[in-house]
Amino acid sequence: MADNTVRILGIDPGLRVTGFGVIEKSGQRLAYVASGCVKAPQSGTLPDRLAVILESLGEVIETHHPGEVALEKVFVNVNPESTLALGQARGAAISAAVLAKLPVSEYTALQVKQAVVGTGHARKEQVQEMVRRLLRLAGSPSPDAADALACAICHAHGGQGWGGRHATRSAVPNAPTVRGYRVRRGRLV
Amino acid sequence: MADNTVRILGIDPGLRVTGFGVIEKSGQRLAYVASGCVKAPQSGTLPDRLAVILESLGEVIETHHPGEVALEKVFVNVNPESTLALGQARGAAISAAVLAKLPVSEYTALQVKQAVVGTGHARKEQVQEMVRRLLRLAGSPSPDAADALACAICHAHGGQGWGGRHATRSAVPNAPTVRGYRVRRGRLV
Repeated sequence: MADNTVRILGIDPGLRVTGFGVIEKSGQRLAYVASGCVKAPQSGTLPDRLAVILESLGEVIETHHPGEVALEKVFVNVNPESTLALGQARGAAISAAVLAKLPVSEYTALQVKQAVVGTGHARKEQVQEMVRRLLRLAGSPSPDAADALACAICHAHGGQGWGGRHATRSAVPNAPTVRGYRVRRGRLV
Repeated sequence: MADNTVRILGIDPGLRVTGFGVIEKSGQRLAYVASGCVKAPQSGTLPDRLAVILESLGEVIETHHPGEVALEKVFVNVNPESTLALGQARGAAISAAVLAKLPVSEYTALQVKQAVVGTGHARKEQVQEMVRRLLRLAGSPSPDAADALACAICHAHGGQGWGGRHATRSAVPNAPTVRGYRVRRGRLV
C-alpha cells in the first residue's frame, strides 16, 4: 500500500447484528474492500454474544488490516433495555479496536448522512443507495453493512460532507476502484 | 492451588469507576486475594476510557489468575445516557473476561444481597460491612470494590444465600483466611 493509503473499518454495533465495512482511501479515491454482518446467536448468553462480536471483529481486523476505525455515535433509545444492550455491543466492538491499537472515531448520524448523501435529512434507503454508488458496487450491501460502510466513508471525508444539499454522484472527486465482492439477489454477500 | 480451589473475580463495571475484587474459594473457605478500583480519565474519549477498563482488568486477570468471573446484572437507569455509558463499560469488562477465556456469570442485586447479608433488602452499608466480615478484613473496601467482592462471594455460594434472614457472621461455615492487603484510614488500598 502507498503511504497515503489508509484502510478504514466502519462498525455498526448491535447485540443481535453488528455490521462492518472496510474501505480503502488512496488520496481522494475510495475503494470497497469488504463488508458483512456478525450475527450473535439469539440463544446465547450475554457474554457469549459479546464474545462473538469481539472475536469476529478481531478476525475482520486481522484479515483486512484497517488502520483506523469509525463508529456512529448513538442516540439513546426510548427503550432502556435496548439502550443497555446497544451499549454492551458498542463496548465489545470498541474493545476489538482497542485491542488492535487502532484509533477510534465517532460521528453523529447527521455527519454520516451529510458525508454520504450530502444532506443530514436523508432516508436510510438513500444512504444505502449512495454507499452503493460511491463505492461502485453492483448490489446493495445489507442495511447493517451499509451503515458501517457509510460511517467509514464519513471518516474518509474527515467527517465532512463531500457535496452540497443537492449533490449527485458526479460530485464524487474521483470514481472509486472496486474489487473482490460477490452479489446475490442484488445484495453483496 | 488444590483441585477444589478456585479464584473468582467479581467486577462492578462503570464508565468512571470499575470496582474489582478477587477471592479464593477452597471447599467452603473464602479468602480475600485482592481488590481495587479502575478509574478511567474523565477527560478521555470513550475509546480511551474503555481501553483503560479493558487493559486494567486484563492486568488483574494476568496477576491473580481467576478461573471464573462474576458480575451484577444491572437494572436499567432512568437516565438513558447513564444506561448507555454503563452498557459500554460492561461490554469492555466482559470483553476482558472473554479474552482470557473465563466463564462469566451474572447475578441480580437481590441474589448478591441474599448471598452476602442473608436478605435481599440490605442497605449498601450492610453489604460492605458483611463483605468485610466474611473476608475478615481489618478495613472496609471502597464501595465499588465491596460491590465487586460481594458479587464474587455470591458466585462462590452458587448464587445462593448462605444464611437465613437474620443470619449473623457465625453462620459462615468456615472462617476465611486473609492475606496481602493494606489498610489506610480504615479502608483497603
